[in-house]
Amino acid sequence: MNNYIEALAKDTYNAYKKFLSVLTKEKNQFLQILAENLTKNYDYILTENSKDIRNAQKKGLSNAFIDRLKLSAERIENIAKGVLKIIELDDPVGKFEDFKTHPEGFKLGKMRVPIGVIAMIYEARPNVTIDATALSIKSGNAIILRGGSNSYFSNMALVKIIKNSLKEAKLEPNLVNYIDKIDREYIYQLLKMDKYVHLAIPRGGEELIKSVVNESRIPVLKHYKGICHIYVNEYAKIDEAIRICVNGKISRPAVCNATETILVDQNIADKIMPDLIDTLLKNNVEVRGCSRTQKYNNNIKKATDIDWATEYLDLIVSIKIVDNIDDAISHINEYSSGHTDSIITENLSIANKFIEQVDSATVMVNSSTRLSDGGVFGLGAEIGISTDRFHARGPMGLEELTTYKWVLIGDYNTR
Amino acid sequence: MNNYIEALAKDTYNAYKKFLSVLTKEKNQFLQILAENLTKNYDYILTENSKDIRNAQKKGLSNAFIDRLKLSAERIENIAKGVLKIIELDDPVGKFEDFKTHPEGFKLGKMRVPIGVIAMIYEARPNVTIDATALSIKSGNAIILRGGSNSYFSNMALVKIIKNSLKEAKLEPNLVNYIDKIDREYIYQLLKMDKYVHLAIPRGGEELIKSVVNESRIPVLKHYKGICHIYVNEYAKIDEAIRICVNGKISRPAVCNATETILVDQNIADKIMPDLIDTLLKNNVEVRGCSRTQKYNNNIKKATDIDWATEYLDLIVSIKIVDNIDDAISHINEYSSGHTDSIITENLSIANKFIEQVDSATVMVNSSTRLSDGGVFGLGAEIGISTDRFHARGPMGLEELTTYKWVLIGDYNTR
Repeated sequence: MNNYIEALAKDTYNAYKKFLSVLTKEKNQFLQILAENLTKNYDYILTENSKDIRNAQKKGLSNAFIDRLKLSAERIENIAKGVLKIIELDDPVGKFEDFKTHPEGFKLGKMRVPIGVIAMIYEARPNVTIDATALSIKSGNAIILRGGSNSYFSNMALVKIIKNSLKEAKLEPNLVNYIDKIDREYIYQLLKMDKYVHLAIPRGGEELIKSVVNESRIPVLKHYKGICHIYVNEYAKIDEAIRICVNGKISRPAVCNATETILVDQNIADKIMPDLIDTLLKNNVEVRGCSRTQKYNNNIKKATDIDWATEYLDLIVSIKIVDNIDDAISHINEYSSGHTDSIITENLSIANKFIEQVDSATVMVNSSTRLSDGGVFGLGAEIGISTDRFHARGPMGLEELTTYKWVLIGDYNTR
Repeated sequence: MNNYIEALAKDTYNAYKKFLSVLTKEKNQFLQILAENLTKNYDYILTENSKDIRNAQKKGLSNAFIDRLKLSAERIENIAKGVLKIIELDDPVGKFEDFKTHPEGFKLGKMRVPIGVIAMIYEARPNVTIDATALSIKSGNAIILRGGSNSYFSNMALVKIIKNSLKEAKLEPNLVNYIDKIDREYIYQLLKMDKYVHLAIPRGGEELIKSVVNESRIPVLKHYKGICHIYVNEYAKIDEAIRICVNGKISRPAVCNATETILVDQNIADKIMPDLIDTLLKNNVEVRGCSRTQKYNNNIKKATDIDWATEYLDLIVSIKIVDNIDDAISHINEYSSGHTDSIITENLSIANKFIEQVDSATVMVNSSTRLSDGGVFGLGAEIGISTDRFHARGPMGLEELTTYKWVLIGDYNTR
C-alpha cells in the first residue's frame, strides 16, 4: 500500500516540477481538448456511469445520492462548458505583487506560484473530478483525486479521458492521478506524503473531513458545514428584513449558504415576529424557536441547543430572540460554523460592530446569506468554500489555489 | 493534563474574542507599558535568568546554548527597544483590500483580521517570549507560549511582567498564556485543540518540528532549515560572483540564510574555480566538493549526498560543478530546503528561467542569500522565516500573522 501511494505521489510531484515551465496558452489548450473529448466520449462516459448507478440502486442508496451521481448527455455538456469557462479566466500564476525598488537598489516583490500537488478527496459526484482537474491545471497545480467509491466506474472513465487529453496537449499524464483503491487507509497514507503533496482538500461528510484532519501531515483546507445566521437588528427595515430572511431560507435550502438561524432583536420582535413567522410557515418552513419566540405562534416547536448547532439543509429554521447586538454576536461566535453571517440594520455603528466582531469567513450587512458564493463574488469558478481561517476563507477560486514566492532582482548586493 | 490544557486554550480563546474590538492605540499602549516594565524590572528578570543559567551550567550545556539563554541589562534594553519599534509599524488589522462595487450594487471586498489564537513553541531563548508576544498582540492575536524547559525561570518572570502590563493597559491577561509544564505531552494536547487554537508556530530542532507536524490538528507554519544555494551561471561576472559567494558563506555562517552549497556552471568553472576556492580557503572556510571540483585543489574533501542535504551553520561549504541551468535547477529543487536560492548571471532568459522554476520561498538574481531577512525586506519585525508553501513563505512579519474575512455591504440583496 505504502509503495503504491508513494510512487503515485512521487510521480505526480515530478510531473508538477516540469509543469512549472508550462505557459498559460498550453494549459488553455489542454482545457480545450478536455472539453472536446468529454463531448465526444459521452457514450462511453454514460455506459460507465450506468454501472455506478446500477450498483447504487442495488445498495438501496437514496434518490438524492443517485441524482448527484447520475450523468446525462446534458450534464456532460454542462461540465464541458464549465471547462471552457475556465479558459477565459485570468491565470493567477506569474502575477507580480508589491514589486518595488528597495532603498539598497535591488528590486523586491512577490510572485504568484502554484501550491504544488493537491490531494482532493470528495464525495461520489463525478462532475467534481473534471471541475477540480480543470481548476488545478489552470492554476499550475498537479492533483491526486479520490472520489467516493460509489462513483468508481464514472471516475475511471473520466480520468482516462483526462489523461488522454493531457497527452494530446503534450503535457505529463501524471499531472492528474487517481487513487483507484477503495480502502480509506490509502487516503491516510497519502496524507503522510508531505514531501510530495502540499495541500489536502477534503469534501464530504463531517466524519470524513475530521478523519482527514486527524491523519494529515499536510495542510488541509476544508469546509465543515454552513450554519449561517441572519440577525435582525432593532434598526432593521421590517419588510426588507422579512424578505431577506425568507430568501435566505427558502431560495435553495439544501445548500451551505442557506440561512439556518434567524436572530431577532427584542426591541423589534413585537413589530416583526408575527409577519416573519407567518411568511415562513406559508412557505412550508418548519419554525423552531426559543421560548420567547414560541409566544408569538402556537405552531412553533421548542428549539434546543442542538438546533442552534444544526445545519438543517432543509425547510426548517430556528429563531431566537436576542437582547441586543452583543448578545447576537456572542450567539453567532458560539454557534456559527464560520461560513456566512448577516445583519439587517440601518444603523452604521451597529453594522460596523457586527463586521468587526463576527469572526466568520464572510460577514454581510443587509444581504441574504445566499449571496456567499464564488460565482456571485466574481471568482469565475469555485473549488469550494473554506470555513478555515488559514490561507483562504470563504469562496475559493483559482487565486486561492496559488501561493507566492519572494523574487529579488539584485545588483550584486551583499550584507 | 487534558483539563489543564483545555482550560488554558479556552481562556485564551475567550480573551481573543473580546480582543476583536480593541483599537490600535490600545494595543500600542500595552506595548509602551511592556517596554517600560521590562526596563524597570531588569533586576528581577536577571535574578530569575541566573537560575536558568546555573541549571544549564550544571547540566553541562554548550556555551553557544548558554549564550542564547543569557540575558543582561543591555540585552533587556534591546528587547524593550524591539517592542517600541513594533509600536511604529502599521497595524495590518482592518485593512481593506480589493473593495469594490459589484454589478448588483452591493460593496464587496476583503478585510484583514487576526488569525486568532497562536501556539508558539520555541527553543530556550527568552527574547522570543517578548518578541512573539509583541507581534501577536499588535496583529490582534492571542498567544499561548511554550519555551524550551531550560528557560523556565526566565520565561516565568517575563510572562509575569507581560500579564501585569496587560492589566495596566486594561487588556485581558489571558491574551498571553504560558504552558508551565515540562512534559511535551502538554504541547501535543494543545495541538489537538482546534476549536480554540488556530495556528501553531514551532521553532527549534528538526525533531521537535516534525513531532509538532505529526501531532497537530491545527495548521502549522514552520521553518525546517536553511539549505541555501548560489548558482554561478556561465554568464556571471567572475569577481562579483566570488564576492557574493564569500559573503553568503562567511558574513554570518550560523544563520539560516547563509549559503551552504555553491553550484558552478561547467562553462565558467576553469575561469572561476581557482580564485573562488582560494578565497574561501583564505577565509578559513572548509570546502567540500564534487569530483570535478576536487580537481581544482588538493585541499578539498569529497562531498557526499549527505553534504548536499546538510545545513552546516558553520564555516563549511559544498561546491558542485553542474552541466547547465537545468542541472542547477534540478539539484536545487532536490536538495534546497525551500528557504532561499540565488543565481549569478548577466543573461536575462536564464535569470527568468531560474526565477520561474526554482520552487523556493525566496528566489534571487545577483544577490547574496544573506539578504533574505524580514528586516532587509522591510517587514519591520519578523516572527520567523517560513519554508512552508502555505499561507506565508519566507520572512513573516505582522501581516503574515493575519488572515482575511469577506465583507459584503448590501442594499437588501437576495438571490
